[in-house]
Amino acid sequence: MAEHDLIGVDIGGTTVKMAFITYTGDIIDKWEIPTDKSDGASNVVADIASSIQSKQQENGYNANDFVAIGVGAPGFMDIQRGFVYEAVNVGWKDYPLGERLREATGYPVFLENDANLAALGEFWKGSGSQTTNMLAVTLGTGVGGGIIANGQLLHGTNGTVAEIGHMTVEMNNPMPCNCGKMGCLETVASATAIAKLAKQAVEEGKTTSLALLMKENGFVTAKDVFDAADQDDKVANEILEYVINTLGVSIANLAIALNPAKIVIGGGVSKAGNRLLTPLRKVFDQHALTRTSDVVEFVIASLGNDAGVLGAAYLAKNAVK
Amino acid sequence: MAEHDLIGVDIGGTTVKMAFITYTGDIIDKWEIPTDKSDGASNVVADIASSIQSKQQENGYNANDFVAIGVGAPGFMDIQRGFVYEAVNVGWKDYPLGERLREATGYPVFLENDANLAALGEFWKGSGSQTTNMLAVTLGTGVGGGIIANGQLLHGTNGTVAEIGHMTVEMNNPMPCNCGKMGCLETVASATAIAKLAKQAVEEGKTTSLALLMKENGFVTAKDVFDAADQDDKVANEILEYVINTLGVSIANLAIALNPAKIVIGGGVSKAGNRLLTPLRKVFDQHALTRTSDVVEFVIASLGNDAGVLGAAYLAKNAVK
Repeated sequence: MAEHDLIGVDIGGTTVKMAFITYTGDIIDKWEIPTDKSDGASNVVADIASSIQSKQQENGYNANDFVAIGVGAPGFMDIQRGFVYEAVNVGWKDYPLGERLREATGYPVFLENDANLAALGEFWKGSGSQTTNMLAVTLGTGVGGGIIANGQLLHGTNGTVAEIGHMTVEMNNPMPCNCGKMGCLETVASATAIAKLAKQAVEEGKTTSLALLMKENGFVTAKDVFDAADQDDKVANEILEYVINTLGVSIANLAIALNPAKIVIGGGVSKAGNRLLTPLRKVFDQHALTRTSDVVEFVIASLGNDAGVLGAAYLAKNAVK
Repeated sequence: MAEHDLIGVDIGGTTVKMAFITYTGDIIDKWEIPTDKSDGASNVVADIASSIQSKQQENGYNANDFVAIGVGAPGFMDIQRGFVYEAVNVGWKDYPLGERLREATGYPVFLENDANLAALGEFWKGSGSQTTNMLAVTLGTGVGGGIIANGQLLHGTNGTVAEIGHMTVEMNNPMPCNCGKMGCLETVASATAIAKLAKQAVEEGKTTSLALLMKENGFVTAKDVFDAADQDDKVANEILEYVINTLGVSIANLAIALNPAKIVIGGGVSKAGNRLLTPLRKVFDQHALTRTSDVVEFVIASLGNDAGVLGAAYLAKNAVK
C-alpha cells in the first residue's frame, strides 16, 4: 500500500460496490454490501464507513494509506457541494452525501453520477484507453451515458449531462418513457424496450419463435431477441433493425456534436458484441459526417461492474492531485 | 498598449477580419481586408501579416506590445499542428496556416475553426457571460455551432466538433444537404432552408403573401417569412412551426447531452429575436428533461461580426498564459 491509494464507492439501488485502488488504477481489493434502503436509506453512509474500516483492519492497511474517496450514486447531484438532489433508486432526496461520508470516514469525498463514473472508469482503465474524446453509451434497463471531451469528464450544470436515454428520437410512433416524455431513446434501445417490442410482436400474433419462449417463460429478454435473430427469425430481425437504426442515428448525431475518437458501448445489450456493433456501425456511417466516421472507433466496454469504482477512484485522484 | 495584448484574425471566404484586443477583451482597433482567393489563396497570409504591421505602425504600436495571434478559418483543421486540412470557401487544402502565419509575423499562432471561435467569443465577452456550460447555435447560410463544457471550448478529434447543422433530424421528408447526406438540421433551420421552404410553398400554389414577394423580387428570404408570419400569413406560420419544431427537438437533444446553462442563438435568423426564441423555448421545454430545462437560459448572440476575432484572441490568451 502506498500513501496515495484511493477508495472507490459505487452506490446502487441493490448493492454498494467498493474497492481499494492504487494511484495507477489497479484494484487491490473489491467487495460489496447490500444497500439498506430502510429509513430513507439513512444507514447507507454508516454501513459504507464501517465496511471500509473493517476491510482495512482485516487486511492490515492503515487509514492513512488512502487519500480520498470517490463515490458514484444514481440520480441528480450538485457535485461541487457533494449534495444529492434526488436518487430515486436509493431513496435519497436533498441528501448531503459528500459531507456525511466525509464525517463518517475522515476522508475527502468527491461525488459524481454513477453513469458518468462508469464512463470515466472505461476511459481510465477500460476500452476508452484514455482517448481524449470519448462517448460512453450504456444499454441496460435504461439507456445512459457519459462524455469525455478535451480529456475531461463532462459534469454539466445540474447533473443531467449525458442523459442520452432521454433524447427524443421517435416522433412517428412514440412510446411513453419513465421520465414523463414520449419517444425517448430509452423507449427504443434499452434492454427493457427490446423485450417490450418482442412482447408486442407476439401479442400482435406475428409468426416468430419468440412466441413459444413467451408462452414457456411468460416473458422474453433482449438476449432472446438477439438469439432468435441469429436463427434468422424474421420478426426478431425486424425488431433489431428498428432498434439499431434508431440507436445508430442517435449516436451519429451525438458524434457530430462531440467528434469522439471512441464510442464505448456497455450495459447488458452490449453483450451481443459484433451482432450489435456491425449493423450499428453501418447505420452510424450513413448518418455521420465522413470526417466524423473516419476518426471514430466503436468498442464494447471492458470493465463490467468494476467501471463504477474505477471511475470513482479516478475522480478522487484528479481532485486531490 | 500593454505587453500582453492580443491579435484576433477571422478568415472568411470574402474578407479577413482582424482586431487588436486587450488581455481583458476590449477591442482597441478592428479592420478588415478582402480575402485574396487567387493562386489557391496563397497570398492571404502575407496580406494579413502586412496589414497587421501597417496598422501597428499607423497607430504607433510596437510589435512586442502583442504576445500572440489567434486565428479562425472555416473548415477542418488540426489545431495542434495549426494545419488546415480543407477550407473550401477560402481555397486551402492541406495548408500549414499556423506555421506560415508564424513565419510571416513572428508571433506564436493558435488556430481553431471559425464557428468554434465565434462561440468562444460569445462565451468570453458576449451573451455567453463565461457560463461554464454553453451551447452556441448559429442559424445563417448554414447551421453551425460551438460548445463550451467544463468552462472550455471543445475541440473534438479532427475538427468536426459541434457540426450540429449535420445532425440527421428529418427522416420522413428529408432534403439533400450540401454535405451529401439527407435530412440534416441545416436543410430545415438555416436561413437558406427557410427561404427554400417558402419558395416551395409558393410553387405549390399555396395562398400566401409570400407569392407576391416572390413575383416582385424573384426570391424570398427567411426574414420575409418571419415578417409574413407576423402579419398572420398562415403558410408562413406553418413553415416556421415546422422549422422551430425541428430545431427545438434538435437543441433539446443536444442540451440533454451537454446540460448547458446558456444556449446562445446567433446568425442572421437570430435577428427574429423573441419571435424565434419564444416558440423555440416552448418546443425545447416539451422535449428536454425538466431538470435540463430548469437550468438553461436562451439568449441571442450579442457580438455580431466581432465574435470571431474576440474568440480568436481568447484562444491565444489561454494558449500563452
